[in-house]
Amino acid sequence: MNTFGHLFRVTTFGESHGPAIGCVIDGCPPGLEIAVEEFRLDLDRRATGKSRHTSARHEADEVEILSGVFEGRTTGTPIALLVRNTDARSKDYGRIAEQFRPGHADYTYWQKYGIRDPRGGGRSSARETTMRVAAAVIAKKWLALQFGVRVRGYLSQLGEITPQAFDWNAVEDNPFFWPSAEQVPLLESYMDALRKSGDSVGARVNVVADGVPAGWGEPVYGKLDGELAAALMSINAVKGVEIGDGFAAVTQKGTEHRDEISPQGFLSNHAGGILGGISTGQQVTASIVLKPTSSLRLPGHTVDIEGNPAEVITTGRHDPCVGIRATPIAEAMIALVLMDQALRHRAQCGDVGPVQPLIPGSVPAAGSHG
Amino acid sequence: MNTFGHLFRVTTFGESHGPAIGCVIDGCPPGLEIAVEEFRLDLDRRATGKSRHTSARHEADEVEILSGVFEGRTTGTPIALLVRNTDARSKDYGRIAEQFRPGHADYTYWQKYGIRDPRGGGRSSARETTMRVAAAVIAKKWLALQFGVRVRGYLSQLGEITPQAFDWNAVEDNPFFWPSAEQVPLLESYMDALRKSGDSVGARVNVVADGVPAGWGEPVYGKLDGELAAALMSINAVKGVEIGDGFAAVTQKGTEHRDEISPQGFLSNHAGGILGGISTGQQVTASIVLKPTSSLRLPGHTVDIEGNPAEVITTGRHDPCVGIRATPIAEAMIALVLMDQALRHRAQCGDVGPVQPLIPGSVPAAGSHG
Amino acid sequence: MNTFGHLFRVTTFGESHGPAIGCVIDGCPPGLEIAVEEFRLDLDRRATGKSRHTSARHEADEVEILSGVFEGRTTGTPIALLVRNTDARSKDYGRIAEQFRPGHADYTYWQKYGIRDPRGGGRSSARETTMRVAAAVIAKKWLALQFGVRVRGYLSQLGEITPQAFDWNAVEDNPFFWPSAEQVPLLESYMDALRKSGDSVGARVNVVADGVPAGWGEPVYGKLDGELAAALMSINAVKGVEIGDGFAAVTQKGTEHRDEISPQGFLSNHAGGILGGISTGQQVTASIVLKPTSSLRLPGHTVDIEGNPAEVITTGRHDPCVGIRATPIAEAMIALVLMDQALRHRAQCGDVGPVQPLIPGSVPAAGSHG
Amino acid sequence: MNTFGHLFRVTTFGESHGPAIGCVIDGCPPGLEIAVEEFRLDLDRRATGKSRHTSARHEADEVEILSGVFEGRTTGTPIALLVRNTDARSKDYGRIAEQFRPGHADYTYWQKYGIRDPRGGGRSSARETTMRVAAAVIAKKWLALQFGVRVRGYLSQLGEITPQAFDWNAVEDNPFFWPSAEQVPLLESYMDALRKSGDSVGARVNVVADGVPAGWGEPVYGKLDGELAAALMSINAVKGVEIGDGFAAVTQKGTEHRDEISPQGFLSNHAGGILGGISTGQQVTASIVLKPTSSLRLPGHTVDIEGNPAEVITTGRHDPCVGIRATPIAEAMIALVLMDQALRHRAQCGDVGPVQPLIPGSVPAAGSHG
Repeated sequence: MNTFGHLFRVTTFGESHGPAIGCVIDGCPPGLEIAVEEFRLDLDRRATGKSRHTSARHEADEVEILSGVFEGRTTGTPIALLVRNTDARSKDYGRIAEQFRPGHADYTYWQKYGIRDPRGGGRSSARETTMRVAAAVIAKKWLALQFGVRVRGYLSQLGEITPQAFDWNAVEDNPFFWPSAEQVPLLESYMDALRKSGDSVGARVNVVADGVPAGWGEPVYGKLDGELAAALMSINAVKGVEIGDGFAAVTQKGTEHRDEISPQGFLSNHAGGILGGISTGQQVTASIVLKPTSSLRLPGHTVDIEGNPAEVITTGRHDPCVGIRATPIAEAMIALVLMDQALRHRAQCGDVGPVQPLIPGSVPAAGSHG
Repeated sequence: MNTFGHLFRVTTFGESHGPAIGCVIDGCPPGLEIAVEEFRLDLDRRATGKSRHTSARHEADEVEILSGVFEGRTTGTPIALLVRNTDARSKDYGRIAEQFRPGHADYTYWQKYGIRDPRGGGRSSARETTMRVAAAVIAKKWLALQFGVRVRGYLSQLGEITPQAFDWNAVEDNPFFWPSAEQVPLLESYMDALRKSGDSVGARVNVVADGVPAGWGEPVYGKLDGELAAALMSINAVKGVEIGDGFAAVTQKGTEHRDEISPQGFLSNHAGGILGGISTGQQVTASIVLKPTSSLRLPGHTVDIEGNPAEVITTGRHDPCVGIRATPIAEAMIALVLMDQALRHRAQCGDVGPVQPLIPGSVPAAGSHG
Repeated sequence: MNTFGHLFRVTTFGESHGPAIGCVIDGCPPGLEIAVEEFRLDLDRRATGKSRHTSARHEADEVEILSGVFEGRTTGTPIALLVRNTDARSKDYGRIAEQFRPGHADYTYWQKYGIRDPRGGGRSSARETTMRVAAAVIAKKWLALQFGVRVRGYLSQLGEITPQAFDWNAVEDNPFFWPSAEQVPLLESYMDALRKSGDSVGARVNVVADGVPAGWGEPVYGKLDGELAAALMSINAVKGVEIGDGFAAVTQKGTEHRDEISPQGFLSNHAGGILGGISTGQQVTASIVLKPTSSLRLPGHTVDIEGNPAEVITTGRHDPCVGIRATPIAEAMIALVLMDQALRHRAQCGDVGPVQPLIPGSVPAAGSHG
Repeated sequence: MNTFGHLFRVTTFGESHGPAIGCVIDGCPPGLEIAVEEFRLDLDRRATGKSRHTSARHEADEVEILSGVFEGRTTGTPIALLVRNTDARSKDYGRIAEQFRPGHADYTYWQKYGIRDPRGGGRSSARETTMRVAAAVIAKKWLALQFGVRVRGYLSQLGEITPQAFDWNAVEDNPFFWPSAEQVPLLESYMDALRKSGDSVGARVNVVADGVPAGWGEPVYGKLDGELAAALMSINAVKGVEIGDGFAAVTQKGTEHRDEISPQGFLSNHAGGILGGISTGQQVTASIVLKPTSSLRLPGHTVDIEGNPAEVITTGRHDPCVGIRATPIAEAMIALVLMDQALRHRAQCGDVGPVQPLIPGSVPAAGSHG
């Protein structure tokens, strides 16, 4: 199952330290202009080496378009993208072939397949997410051109630290995707201390999609929120997903949570823009948690492949907070789900005449992301 | 998309107040003994009318097996199950055809399809989950027989109330699936007060699966946790899903979260029994939030299908906490995912000789469910 | 795999002599008017008992719509259809539980599943095709309303007998779907003699679809002809499929086969209306062979389930030529494929502006079906 | 839809004259030894330039393994294969961008997508089949190792010429895959004359699979023969598919066609090794027709993209009989279907204890392929 989506299908391949990673994007509408340069921005946003707070691996991540684009436009045939692995220092990983790193997929891959590629985590490395981001560049562009949809994310919590203010403009101006500019020095020093300690910490990322029309999503097993949950949970290190108010709804009353409606629009957005698995026309909101990375300079107990006790210490480059660069990956998964659902919606409901959107405007989602 | 699963595929159909609901279960292994009586227990656990704290609809929910079973054993051909709707008092729902209930799928179905069956919520009603529970009876039985897997759930929070103790034996002895017997009177009075107030409240349900072997799950887009997230989020009213420690991992350190390993087994289970999307052999744990029901006796603002302002009051029977009877539904979704993954695993990895499970035992998951 | 189609998905269930057969149609566009009476015509065309030349089983085949239709229109939710088996005389089949009928699926089902429902062939009975025909009633109606597509078939060969003339009007006026009225008495006496002999014979059925727009079909593994081939080969007793000229092309020259083009349209239709897996806008043509039924009054050698030699004689009702009533089934499979492809086409290519169909008219397909 | 298969999934990409072609093979069992050299044989068998009777394009077809193989063994993760296009002389195809070649996909791609890559047929070129052959190298190897399955094909008719003898050893000793060595000079002169004439001719290819166990295939819409039909019909230029006796069954009697059974095995194999969509344990046989290529030096009528009449003459390299090199492609499609079905079978029916194959031996299929 290395294919994502039903109609806009993305198949990724490649290991962290193999010759290359890549993807095949099938089902893309024809006629969309796309140039190799357009992948640059989001790949850089995701790339390691962006700042001293993320892993030091310097990846060129030069995308080559192998098929599906003719004279600058998509042809409707599969679009293959290829990125060569140029900075794969396999020496760093020598010992891990013999033991199972706690908190990593080493043991489970070995149990499942009876064999594993231990170099840099092989297929289980977050390196794979590069191709999700690349594929989503196409999805984001199509969604923007066809529907005016915009998908954006930000880091909403780093360990115990939460934003003191919210400004979309700030998000892209710091290496943390943090929405509160004045806190950036605090984050810098926090991360420096964390790196010195040899430990790591978890994080939370929020993603919002503006401009999603009402009507996307397929009940009952292809619900928009169900597919967003699967998409986001499939990102490495994610342990939880919320839509709208999420777990806060445990203690809410119905009078508080249900989003009342007026002729001017919904009066709130606790639902996160989705009811019954179908978009309401409001802002779609989701939030995820990324666990602290398990690759630490601090020793941990494990066993080797013979079952003997062993101690593991990670000496290679690793992020003390993998959540920092998860924002573009989370955006990518949202965009892939939305594009797939958009195509599915027009397949089934293309006969439906224009339904008057009775609820013209809608207030932003609850929370601070305006 | 009314089909769930890849190899063990469940297709459900039916509206809340239509002639019947049902499902077709395709891909079931042949030779499994199954009798119509075996559906009774879980359908009763889920059924409305079980106590005064859940909706008063008295549904017979008599299952008829239409195909796929011969002389008491599955034949490998599709198993169709049918339940007639016998207590569908459509009169209760007359007015809602003309207006959109806040917090319900009325508006989104109408925007998507240009038409909707308003009787009792039609397809968007939780009535559909009856067939998930029925299908999962087969999955639970097969998982138990083949692997000793056991899937159990309980209500872990009701509004602000959390369990003071944990006892699996208590769970099935009260109508709340509550693990702490001495709190049951408190819950009773809480619910009575809530019902009187006309309002509703959210809840949290935990589900755990014991006995899941290491190796189930398909990276990268068919991860076990990704599919669990989709499955659980597809349940009506669910707004968030956690695996293992879930959102608590935001503030955890790596040294705390990563589950270290000894020759005697994992030393903890913050991961919830899944690493890299594949089961570790430990207990698989998940937690979900169910929003407070939006059908209230307290009036709410909305618009009618002409866009005029309107006031909605629900007079029919409705649960003040839909989370109370969500436990068997959540168990069902877990079981369906596990069975599908089990079949997929042996399809691809049936060649793999017996891999020595180096990590023989494993401690229970973090948290109180022993 | 009891589901057919990608977006317009039909899942069938039921055994020949079980309580019922049925189907779930998922992905149907909303708003289509459909009434239970509309299933009558094609189910009667397919039904056994129509004439003395087909099996004497008198099936009521009363369709019940269980879901997905509200106030006479489809709602976009799954449409479940149910037909009770009312005339299942299981006594006729007593002995076949103990032995494998030559030419039937008895042995293969038993080898695959280790268990089989022997009553009337169980799941492998052509009884299952009832639901294909029912589902295709919806597809045919939608295709006609949306695109003016019309799918028709006829018996083009019965044993050695071929039509002497071709008239669509004749086809529906005789129990053979034979396009040449004056030969009907010949067919009657041929079948009478065949029945007396206790033997059976093969047949050929042609199907044509008029009005299919250019552009349907998905290269390379979802080609229109590829899916038609799978659909037609999945009909019981079919052993071969041709598109356009089919096997006649073995001895054709390129100058003969390639369909030249003029501003007035294609100058011929050897391709059967499909090039590169995509419809050309011409008539789509296919032809199939149905093997002679293997259920004969003449004894045949076989083995019993213990492996001992045995002799099998069929005493129940059976058609001496199963091809006679295959015409509506073949039409149904064509319609299901076309509708699915139509939805898939507008999903991916809905962005494509109206492409001028440069080739306005097109001559009918090669052959006699005008 | 550029993905083939359900569990053993092959996604191909690439245009005839783009930078590269390739495929991603997902779901391959882990632990299979595979080396880059193993792709050579079948790619050479398929390759153009093998003899003067096939297209003169000299393709290196050097396969690069990009992922999924570690230290010479498959890991269970997706296997990506890449072949660079090194000999793509696009100049040859200049004019065809402006007009639609009769018998090609030019017009249909343009109608579907509103855009097409005209260089060498783009995605509709038979170049794509290179990757099917490459992927099937893995399937063939696994089928042979696990089950002793062997898939072989041969040219069974070239225009009017049919084999006078049958010898598997001869098949691989001539560029035609012809089973009768003494006729090879005749074929040579036939092809020379055909090439001089500027015309082309059709052909027939037979494929047989030995060693297929009883029980593979999924009724009713995943039948083994249905999937073989789709797989074979998806090959460029194929217009018809037969299983077993195929169209000969039109005039056969039931007593002739049904394969009687004795304790020593089936007494014949008219069914082609498949009953009810499931393999019988006999030889699986299929036959296909390939139309004469439409790219001719003889002028043909067409229209240009403005709709004006035009004349098309193909001056580039093209095979006068595309069927000649179709044999390895047909074998490949058979192997891909069989492997996918083998995995699906053990997924669902892995619980079934060893079913005694009551019918131990089986005579070869009807026809001359021993």
